[in-house]
Amino acid sequence: MDTFLEKIGKNAKKAECTVRNLSTGKKNEVLYAAAEKLLSCTELILKANEEDVRKGKEHHMPEGLIDRLLLNEDRILAMADGLRQIAKLEDPIGEVTGMKKRPNGLLIGQKRVPLGVVGIIYEARPNVTSDAFGLCFKTGNVAVLKGGSDALRSNEAIVTCIREALRENDVTENAISLISDTSRETAAAFMKMNQYVDVLIPRGGRGLIQTVVNTSTIPVIETGTGNCHIYVDETADLQMAANIVINAKTQRIGVCNACESLLVHKNVTKEFLPLIGELLREKNVEIRGDQETQRLIAQAVAASEEDWGTEYLDYILSIKVVDSVEEAIAHINHYNTGHSEAIITNNYVHAQKFLDEVDAAAVYVNASTRFTDGQEFGFGAEIGISTQKLHARGPMGLPALTTTKYIIYGNGQVRP
Amino acid sequence: MDTFLEKIGKNAKKAECTVRNLSTGKKNEVLYAAAEKLLSCTELILKANEEDVRKGKEHHMPEGLIDRLLLNEDRILAMADGLRQIAKLEDPIGEVTGMKKRPNGLLIGQKRVPLGVVGIIYEARPNVTSDAFGLCFKTGNVAVLKGGSDALRSNEAIVTCIREALRENDVTENAISLISDTSRETAAAFMKMNQYVDVLIPRGGRGLIQTVVNTSTIPVIETGTGNCHIYVDETADLQMAANIVINAKTQRIGVCNACESLLVHKNVTKEFLPLIGELLREKNVEIRGDQETQRLIAQAVAASEEDWGTEYLDYILSIKVVDSVEEAIAHINHYNTGHSEAIITNNYVHAQKFLDEVDAAAVYVNASTRFTDGQEFGFGAEIGISTQKLHARGPMGLPALTTTKYIIYGNGQVRP
Repeated sequence: MDTFLEKIGKNAKKAECTVRNLSTGKKNEVLYAAAEKLLSCTELILKANEEDVRKGKEHHMPEGLIDRLLLNEDRILAMADGLRQIAKLEDPIGEVTGMKKRPNGLLIGQKRVPLGVVGIIYEARPNVTSDAFGLCFKTGNVAVLKGGSDALRSNEAIVTCIREALRENDVTENAISLISDTSRETAAAFMKMNQYVDVLIPRGGRGLIQTVVNTSTIPVIETGTGNCHIYVDETADLQMAANIVINAKTQRIGVCNACESLLVHKNVTKEFLPLIGELLREKNVEIRGDQETQRLIAQAVAASEEDWGTEYLDYILSIKVVDSVEEAIAHINHYNTGHSEAIITNNYVHAQKFLDEVDAAAVYVNASTRFTDGQEFGFGAEIGISTQKLHARGPMGLPALTTTKYIIYGNGQVRP
Repeated sequence: MDTFLEKIGKNAKKAECTVRNLSTGKKNEVLYAAAEKLLSCTELILKANEEDVRKGKEHHMPEGLIDRLLLNEDRILAMADGLRQIAKLEDPIGEVTGMKKRPNGLLIGQKRVPLGVVGIIYEARPNVTSDAFGLCFKTGNVAVLKGGSDALRSNEAIVTCIREALRENDVTENAISLISDTSRETAAAFMKMNQYVDVLIPRGGRGLIQTVVNTSTIPVIETGTGNCHIYVDETADLQMAANIVINAKTQRIGVCNACESLLVHKNVTKEFLPLIGELLREKNVEIRGDQETQRLIAQAVAASEEDWGTEYLDYILSIKVVDSVEEAIAHINHYNTGHSEAIITNNYVHAQKFLDEVDAAAVYVNASTRFTDGQEFGFGAEIGISTQKLHARGPMGLPALTTTKYIIYGNGQVRP
């Protein structure tokens, strides 16, 4: 007999064949209907969410997490708007590229197609539920979701709504399923369902992502941690450098594209470190620096080896003085997480060298690392920011949820 | 203290920074030099290979495997030619695509860059050693190779040659390393070296690939098994269908794009099955069929459920009669391995339906599945045929060994 997990897997695989072939018009119709449905179910969703929040408080969930878990009318409105925005995006499915005739007459091209069944594992943010469905559905994929136990009731309510909208529009409701058993064993079994799930995307903190990478036998798209650096070169416009550092460090603290470490060329420390030290003090940012930094910024404390590799996601910045752009690049390539890195410089050779040699998803000259984001890059929607090198790297738009297949038109060719 | 495996990993990671930035000219120079070196070392390589073959025979290695292991002057010439051919291919590295100016003035583009360190795990074919090096090196990647124990001496001799060529051309010899401990424990440890290896590519049989997929925590590019079908539609030109089936089944038996299963529309069985039955008999192909097939082809034996899912790689073909193109597509999507699938038809709607709905890396109309191959597709070289959906699908040319990074030119932009 099938376990309930196998049932979900089989249903998802079965749904795949129909969802894959829906027209863009039909998909958009369903996305608008699902948005309407979320709004008309607001009361039900809020009631389920209240229960989750109550339990969370009972279990002394930290306030930050409660805030992520909490839904209200505005947040449900935002979820519905998210689905409508996805409906407005261009559908990447079906495009055929590079079609060429081979010498033997075969006509070979590459067609963009859905991945199939996409598994998404996430934590306590119920808005990921509708968001992930929207992105997967628009790209013709079936979504199997596994959210955190803290948000179970909220997620169930949202998925119930969306399934209703699917059914009312004559599309299989198995286009979305929620794994309602939130135990570790079920999660581990889910990550090994290679026969039913084509790709797994973890969305959440470092711990979650590491667990998925280490456990899953299904191909994973790794998203997110960012130990991002800004290197202030010898020739930098120091006022620009200060603006960018303050923006990248403090505009939003808990995000993966925030700056965590500052490298400063030795020839500009005397002017730049006191300047940035004062600005950071005003923003209550703790500074952990090397000896030279501590000498020039009164409030700086000593950085440990561990600091260079830490993504603080907090009002803390590590600062190190370097002798050259080469040393900066070597330091970054050693300690970074492959996310976003910036150089502030007016030296053409150094700018090009930094762009060439720094190994990261996004490399900037004279701009804030905070721009690494699907919206900012003009993709309209974002599944996450890939910090791995396979399939997709950097902010992932809808095409990251697709693959290609070769289509070949022949007229009887056989291989000689 | 570092284990020898960690040393290889660290050396590879260190080599990555220099190999990544080599010019196309320099890379080609080294590839030609390595080809020369292989030829001038022919005697040494053959001596090492003789030892491997002698041991293989001692251990009663099957003749097919001995043949794969065996090197001779012609095969070393072919290895050298392979490197020269790779030198002649276009270098995908460095191309920048989609560069666009955002409303805030940021200029954002995607640059093609090497993956970094590529691990390749393979079996007893020593030619994979030079081939894998050539493909990785041309794309600016460092190669860490783990071959089968049966070919250890041959692989060591080849790698020694290539490292000499690298050294003589002032390139770090760690652009290629061979893991000379062929134990299972070392293999398992290698597959978890995420901090040093960016991608793992298994090349070999199903067992090897499954082990890597199940063990590795490093992203894997899965290559190869093919349970390929040909569906002969109601309106097919039956002579063309017969030619294609015979070609796809018998032109080469042990390859992943060979046809393993034939589906025939019920309205053409009376004419087609006796015809193909006779042609298959002449080629000594065993037929395992459903009832209708057995009724119309005297020599056909009964197919079991297992047959529908089996990649024979042998003179065996399963045959099933279906009621419609829909049934054919459903059967294929249930039993195939996502490799190559063909329809033989003169019906426009059925051809398009088959191309749209069959889920595989390559889908053909009126041509043999045997064309799924990097050379046949015009890529010049092939790393393997991906049957997974992430990163690359179908025959993989040089671009499959690359990734992209976003490069962003600003002039002081900060995020509002």
